[in-house]
Amino acid sequence: MPLSFLDLVKATDVVPYPSDPEYALVRDFSYDFISHNGVKIGRLTAPVYKALIADYAESFVVTPTAIQLHPDHCNTLEARNKLIARIAADWRAARAFRVLEGWRDELYTVFNPSHVPYLLIERAASMLFGVITYGVHIIGYVPADADGCGSPLRVWVPRRSATKATFPGMLDNTVAGGLGYPYGLLETCVKECYEEAGLSEDYVLKHLTSAGVITYAYQHDYDKDDASSTGLYQPEVEYIYDLRMDPEIVPQPVDGEVAEFNLMTVEEIKTELANGTFKPNTALVQIDFFIRHGLITPEDEPDFLEIQARTHRKMEYPVR
Amino acid sequence: MPLSFLDLVKATDVVPYPSDPEYALVRDFSYDFISHNGVKIGRLTAPVYKALIADYAESFVVTPTAIQLHPDHCNTLEARNKLIARIAADWRAARAFRVLEGWRDELYTVFNPSHVPYLLIERAASMLFGVITYGVHIIGYVPADADGCGSPLRVWVPRRSATKATFPGMLDNTVAGGLGYPYGLLETCVKECYEEAGLSEDYVLKHLTSAGVITYAYQHDYDKDDASSTGLYQPEVEYIYDLRMDPEIVPQPVDGEVAEFNLMTVEEIKTELANGTFKPNTALVQIDFFIRHGLITPEDEPDFLEIQARTHRKMEYPVR
Repeated sequence: MPLSFLDLVKATDVVPYPSDPEYALVRDFSYDFISHNGVKIGRLTAPVYKALIADYAESFVVTPTAIQLHPDHCNTLEARNKLIARIAADWRAARAFRVLEGWRDELYTVFNPSHVPYLLIERAASMLFGVITYGVHIIGYVPADADGCGSPLRVWVPRRSATKATFPGMLDNTVAGGLGYPYGLLETCVKECYEEAGLSEDYVLKHLTSAGVITYAYQHDYDKDDASSTGLYQPEVEYIYDLRMDPEIVPQPVDGEVAEFNLMTVEEIKTELANGTFKPNTALVQIDFFIRHGLITPEDEPDFLEIQARTHRKMEYPVR
Repeated sequence: MPLSFLDLVKATDVVPYPSDPEYALVRDFSYDFISHNGVKIGRLTAPVYKALIADYAESFVVTPTAIQLHPDHCNTLEARNKLIARIAADWRAARAFRVLEGWRDELYTVFNPSHVPYLLIERAASMLFGVITYGVHIIGYVPADADGCGSPLRVWVPRRSATKATFPGMLDNTVAGGLGYPYGLLETCVKECYEEAGLSEDYVLKHLTSAGVITYAYQHDYDKDDASSTGLYQPEVEYIYDLRMDPEIVPQPVDGEVAEFNLMTVEEIKTELANGTFKPNTALVQIDFFIRHGLITPEDEPDFLEIQARTHRKMEYPVR
């Protein structure tokens, strides 16, 4: 059964909305993660809640529904960073949560309501606290008729290396990467375009266009091989860029994360999307690209409105 | 004090979200409008709720928090249309609600969860029932360097006629119009492009690109001159199109709704937006255009994420 575009969105934007009846399950079966001054910044599963209480109760204010960073001990950025880094390192050493095996030595930023960094947290640990994470996704496309021979618009689609820890062998966006502290968006675009596609800074800055953002909230399924990651919350923000590619430029993998690049037509990509061969969250970026470029229209897509709303989800926590 | 882009969004996307504390005000001070088979399709203010009970109680199931179309009397499209048309006509004759002075003889469609028309309702009456309404907004733009002389991207901006009933003299999108039953989206684009800008069907269909949708929920302020419209809910869906304009084509008003067209640069439009001279909901379409074309970026716009989420609001009722 081919997947619809809405099926693909629903597989990534999983968490019920506050207006859904199912939201009661979110509220009743998870715990708010709260800043030292009272702002919700994430969402914890029961195993994480219990593990924090078991060993770090003195650093938090614990209630039956939430864990708050302690107003006395956590009132500086440094203190918060140090506490969370210590907890993540302890849990990694104790093999408490499987997701920490993906340790990256890369810090993600949690923001406060005035968009200032509130907490820095190891990338692999961010999903344990259910905080919002940020990345960039770049669609490298060759415009229609760029070769003067009437060829259609095509997109450079990489296949992930078979040895990648996550989603090996799946199709991906041309270039993508997490927004690690303290790098900016354009810096990250330039860095990832070189590492993943061999493109020069000069080329990228000349041909890159900011094109919006997609936002969604993922929640990990029950996993019998890794009960500790079951139900983890992962709200994500992906800044979107279009990169206009000259027909003669062929992206080249540099860092080994990509197996190969193929230049695909819109119809070919739609077929692969329907087959479920794209890494799940990258499918949403392809759909967004198609909508922005008039390649998915309200005439041919019955779920146009739900797709647009659920890929631009209003986040429950402060954002960048 | 110049208006920020977020100020402009907040002036149109007014209704609190279910996750906001202020949502209690929405819930407690309004009444659900419910289909004969139990689906929420709109929201009523107290004056509308009372007026329905006063004279049409036999056609509805009334509860303290909602009014439902009666399961026995309203189980066909024709019966529903007839009932609502009668009520709207009675209220118009009785001058019960000022918004009915804008009577258009144009029907809007309310949809059921499977995207099928559930109810047709006079345009001017739709806001009394707080149902979702639909329209098209078209940005006619001349691409950068279209003249070969290095000119920047520019947008055709009309000024509304001084005699228009709503927002006279304000700036607007190149072309816009409501989606009246039974017209399709492209049909409506073609019709409005001719009436408002004198553009031929042939030109429009060749140069028009579907570019997404914006959604938001407006609520009328207290109005001392028209208490009957105070608090009315108006959730809106505007399908967005970009229309590439050749430099030599100048839009011409045909139907008298537009006073004049001006070709404006992005900087000029940003200044007018900050001055509040655009019709409120059209400002959102300009902002969306700028975001999609890399003319507002996350580097220069601190509220980028909130703007994107609140112009792609997840609707609480079934949509087209």
